[in-house]
Amino acid sequence: MDLRLEVKHICKQTGARYGILHTPHGQVEVPMFMPVGTLATVKYISPEELEDINSGVILSNTYHLWLRPGEDVVENAGGLHKFMNYKGPILTDSGGFQVFSLSENRKIEEEGVTFKSHLDGSKLFLSPEKSIEIQNKLGADIIMSFDECPPYPVTHEYMKNSVERTLRWAARGKANHKNKNQALFGIVQGGEFQDLRKISAEETVKIGFDGYAIGGTSVGEDKETMYKMIDYCIDYLPKDKPRYLMGVGSYDSIIEGVVRGIDMFDCVLPTRIARHGALMTSEGRLNIRDKKNEYDLRPIDEGCDCYTCKNYSRSYLRHLYRCKEGLGQRLLSIHNLRFLIRLMEEIRIAIKEDRLGDFKEDFFERYGLNEKNPKGF
Amino acid sequence: MDLRLEVKHICKQTGARYGILHTPHGQVEVPMFMPVGTLATVKYISPEELEDINSGVILSNTYHLWLRPGEDVVENAGGLHKFMNYKGPILTDSGGFQVFSLSENRKIEEEGVTFKSHLDGSKLFLSPEKSIEIQNKLGADIIMSFDECPPYPVTHEYMKNSVERTLRWAARGKANHKNKNQALFGIVQGGEFQDLRKISAEETVKIGFDGYAIGGTSVGEDKETMYKMIDYCIDYLPKDKPRYLMGVGSYDSIIEGVVRGIDMFDCVLPTRIARHGALMTSEGRLNIRDKKNEYDLRPIDEGCDCYTCKNYSRSYLRHLYRCKEGLGQRLLSIHNLRFLIRLMEEIRIAIKEDRLGDFKEDFFERYGLNEKNPKGF
Repeated sequence: MDLRLEVKHICKQTGARYGILHTPHGQVEVPMFMPVGTLATVKYISPEELEDINSGVILSNTYHLWLRPGEDVVENAGGLHKFMNYKGPILTDSGGFQVFSLSENRKIEEEGVTFKSHLDGSKLFLSPEKSIEIQNKLGADIIMSFDECPPYPVTHEYMKNSVERTLRWAARGKANHKNKNQALFGIVQGGEFQDLRKISAEETVKIGFDGYAIGGTSVGEDKETMYKMIDYCIDYLPKDKPRYLMGVGSYDSIIEGVVRGIDMFDCVLPTRIARHGALMTSEGRLNIRDKKNEYDLRPIDEGCDCYTCKNYSRSYLRHLYRCKEGLGQRLLSIHNLRFLIRLMEEIRIAIKEDRLGDFKEDFFERYGLNEKNPKGF
Repeated sequence: MDLRLEVKHICKQTGARYGILHTPHGQVEVPMFMPVGTLATVKYISPEELEDINSGVILSNTYHLWLRPGEDVVENAGGLHKFMNYKGPILTDSGGFQVFSLSENRKIEEEGVTFKSHLDGSKLFLSPEKSIEIQNKLGADIIMSFDECPPYPVTHEYMKNSVERTLRWAARGKANHKNKNQALFGIVQGGEFQDLRKISAEETVKIGFDGYAIGGTSVGEDKETMYKMIDYCIDYLPKDKPRYLMGVGSYDSIIEGVVRGIDMFDCVLPTRIARHGALMTSEGRLNIRDKKNEYDLRPIDEGCDCYTCKNYSRSYLRHLYRCKEGLGQRLLSIHNLRFLIRLMEEIRIAIKEDRLGDFKEDFFERYGLNEKNPKGF
């Protein structure tokens, strides 16, 4: 296994970690945000553009690639990197979250989950072994254990059974992991229950993985509850392995996660909201469709160094957005991704300079994140 | 007026012209194909990508920009070049063709045309003066006279009246042309009637324009008829001014046009068919959606030098196309545009080497263009 986390500095103000993650496709700095390329493409954006915004690791979805084009097609191309022409590191999720979020009629059994395709309603079955088998063929640098991602809230009893099953699934997946060049991460579940988060973390670590994710976040809980979910388990995770908070991309949650010791984040948020015309800026949220942008020749964000802000006005971007032009989707997505990735760059500097606590305070004040009507996401 | 055609060579085999068109935004070689950027964007493609495929002049549509975002918004940005961040030359059409093609209920009077918006059905009025006024604000390097573009076929009597009215409109538009940095082209009409094409050409030249277009093509006539439309008028056009065949983008028609002395072409064909998965290749048409491409790791066209062919397989492109991914639309459009623009590069070399006749013969044989089932478009 070629993945290794080199922790270079611990912020004296917060305990947040700065480090280098060594992968088979190069080194990346953590903490980092990973753009999501669901179907082996970050929507509208080329690999060169991803490189240009300093994207690091990108994430692709096993469930979606399993359905289209099928893992054999990707394997035939020599794996995801060659298939989609991305030279940096790639992570694939396990399908566990999609089974939860896309399928209304799912039947969870010890062997695996039976559910319906979101494309044509056909019957599908995913198991820990099958998920790893698919991910082995996809060939990402980092792959994920197949877990149950329960809704929020469920009873303690339901969650206890679920956590125990997910542990058995984690062991089965690990046993079936054939390509040792790929790092395999375990996933800690347990909802908002402190005892179950502890058990899940300790037992997952006992099985032994190359990194650990905190799952069951962003499934409907409020942010304070999510922060507790991190607090309840992070101390049980080994300090020399990467820690990944799944599905989190709002900037306040990213900062709260880093302060708590998280190294990796992913979310569709920046690209999805961009496609709906909502932009992250240093002055808060900007809705590009607003009439006030019609004659506005300023970039989205004066201080932004992205391709979009260097070359296009709000006036033009509003026009493209209103006309549903693909170039608009592309330019808006580039901006939001770069905004979040630049935030990560600033966070890393703040960690190295032992001032992430001050950074957080300034940031939250600037965006009104302690107030009732914050200017952000 | 800063537009000047420098004819550098006449092909001894065919009489086709090679030259340099000097514009306020740089020099471009002719004969050339102009990609269409209807709404101030060549769909999905950035200005840098257009430059990379050696696009030269691009065309944008007055009618569409008049409706969205409105010519005042473009003027406020400093004109189309700054608005859309395109550094090369731009041509805007007059709206005459869109009035014909998009609107079923149009009422043509001496003053202008009343018709309905394709967006919301609201009543619109375009006149020669209004079209030029809009185009002055848009600020393209080359602008077009407002003409009537009659359907095919109409009676000789209808066409005669139409040609005469278009001549009066051309004079009115020229009189209203305020920005002398923009070249103004006249448009020759007359349908398939030899006498009317001659009259239209001679009288348009008498009014005096910076270049001349042949209009009323690609409105339903067969290709032989279109070639006659060129033959009937081209000898009456001045040799030192650019000649533009409007709306033509199939490769056989481009070659036939060049052989007859045409310098400029435009068409939505390469980008529109690309968005429907139809690709131009040296082996004829390729439908990317076909099952046979599922595991095919070859590029679209082995001999192609475009970004898409250098980096992506048919297998990946088919996947993107099936999933309706914007990156697919983008990559397929880049290929088709580069295919046509590379064809123009080859045509220009053949002219300079006095062998365009041989080139045409080889090309038509390769694509089966003299046969019943040609492999092309």
